[in-house]
Amino acid sequence: MAPAIHVGPEPPLEYLVEAVKQGGGEITSLADAEAVVWAGSPEELPALPNGIKWVQLQSAGIEPWIERIRDTPEVQWTSAVGAYAMQVAELALALLLAGTRGIHRYARATTWAPEDERVLEGSKVAIIGAGGIGKELIRLLEPHDVEIVAVTRSGRDGTLPVDRLPEVWGDADHFVLCAPSTDDTTHLVGAEQLAQMQPHSWIVNIARGSLIDDDALVAALNDDAIGGAALDVTDPEPLPDGHPLWTCPNALITPHVANPPNTMARDLAKRVRENVRRYVGGEELLAPVSPEQGY
Amino acid sequence: MAPAIHVGPEPPLEYLVEAVKQGGGEITSLADAEAVVWAGSPEELPALPNGIKWVQLQSAGIEPWIERIRDTPEVQWTSAVGAYAMQVAELALALLLAGTRGIHRYARATTWAPEDERVLEGSKVAIIGAGGIGKELIRLLEPHDVEIVAVTRSGRDGTLPVDRLPEVWGDADHFVLCAPSTDDTTHLVGAEQLAQMQPHSWIVNIARGSLIDDDALVAALNDDAIGGAALDVTDPEPLPDGHPLWTCPNALITPHVANPPNTMARDLAKRVRENVRRYVGGEELLAPVSPEQGY
Repeated sequence: MAPAIHVGPEPPLEYLVEAVKQGGGEITSLADAEAVVWAGSPEELPALPNGIKWVQLQSAGIEPWIERIRDTPEVQWTSAVGAYAMQVAELALALLLAGTRGIHRYARATTWAPEDERVLEGSKVAIIGAGGIGKELIRLLEPHDVEIVAVTRSGRDGTLPVDRLPEVWGDADHFVLCAPSTDDTTHLVGAEQLAQMQPHSWIVNIARGSLIDDDALVAALNDDAIGGAALDVTDPEPLPDGHPLWTCPNALITPHVANPPNTMARDLAKRVRENVRRYVGGEELLAPVSPEQGY
Repeated sequence: MAPAIHVGPEPPLEYLVEAVKQGGGEITSLADAEAVVWAGSPEELPALPNGIKWVQLQSAGIEPWIERIRDTPEVQWTSAVGAYAMQVAELALALLLAGTRGIHRYARATTWAPEDERVLEGSKVAIIGAGGIGKELIRLLEPHDVEIVAVTRSGRDGTLPVDRLPEVWGDADHFVLCAPSTDDTTHLVGAEQLAQMQPHSWIVNIARGSLIDDDALVAALNDDAIGGAALDVTDPEPLPDGHPLWTCPNALITPHVANPPNTMARDLAKRVRENVRRYVGGEELLAPVSPEQGY
């Protein structure tokens, strides 16, 4: 029998309703449901009825949900981790190439003034957090003739365990932050880490703004202590008008567009369809949330 | 016996002298040489003594040399085609990603204003001219989940022959120009071709400015008839101050930096070493110039 699944908040997004049906679910009210696909905020979601076994969220980051998740240990929560990984990794590569090849500077120029840039080829790129996005980025970097050092919590699969992260700051040329936002990753990059980087080093952040101490970053950029920073996420967000990062010549800000709405709908529908199919078949769901780890 | 090779103009570049020696050649005056490695202009190169069998040039484009080459059919000329292909392909990808992901626009912004961008993933990319650079770009695009259509003179190896190019303009999403500058490729992209492109289409030119009719391009950009143009080469070059391309919101100009001096020296030395080694061994040289084809 098709599982009863509620899609909310009301009115439900048509593409999510379609995805649930295609995956083999039946659409019901929240009261009658055993599972929920929720495209809204935690505040909008009522207390879960007793029969709910599974909640699928729409975003990869689940910070605003962490209390709700910890309060309902009997429910399996899944995030959208990995569903948007390709789009986000694509922007990460775009920003890394833009920074290293000087495109941020040339985009602002109105006169022909070539500089003797570095290139990405031949450099060592540290990927901090090799989950879904980090893995996609490694795949995109494969043909680029760069040396990759991936840092993960576990240190499995040829990655460096996170306790060896201090070695990386002075060793790699460039840094791409793909780590989830947790208590452990707040200000992962601060004055101490920036001081170890090289004058040509670029930092790309497509994860969460909280991973970088922005005051320390602005100081490093103003001193030309590093090559630059390309940030799709900032702290706070939106980055307020007049913030020094808007006018640092060696900063490049994109306004959290790694996962644009038009492709997000397509990618979320695909993930929901797949997870409903797995739920129907009793298989393991994609991107289960771990309340302990916070992602 | 080591072949007598002249490196010029005087004083010779030390890294080229080293490369010739490492390849197995002996450094001599022009009068005593049987081969020449020339890092200067055609005007600087004296008439070739009778014994010269081979001349290695430093650039990939050989337009200024074409008369000299046609006047000396007994000499084997080689260019640097392919030697810098990786750096150039890297910038081509950087520009393609920058354009499609809106980085040119965000680089100029001083306020948080996300737009619903397209992404590169899932698009069809036409690579016009799949020589050394085009082939490298195809390799870099491999993991990107894009459809590639490569257009070459011959139509060999799964590429589309150049006489079918008219089909491509209305069919592909984006266009990367990698073709050599010849009589046949002047204004390859003009009003007629631009009119067939899609409103989101980006054109990337890392080959030669003459391939695009810039007046037609500026008109198309001003009408938002295409997504945009990212140009590392222009016509004329340098692009003069005040040229409309400097201020088109959907244009991105880099000042012929695909092959930056610091990596050029390294890459040229590698090519010279390899070609001297091949010359010593009687093997076929890399990048022989065809006087008929003009590249």
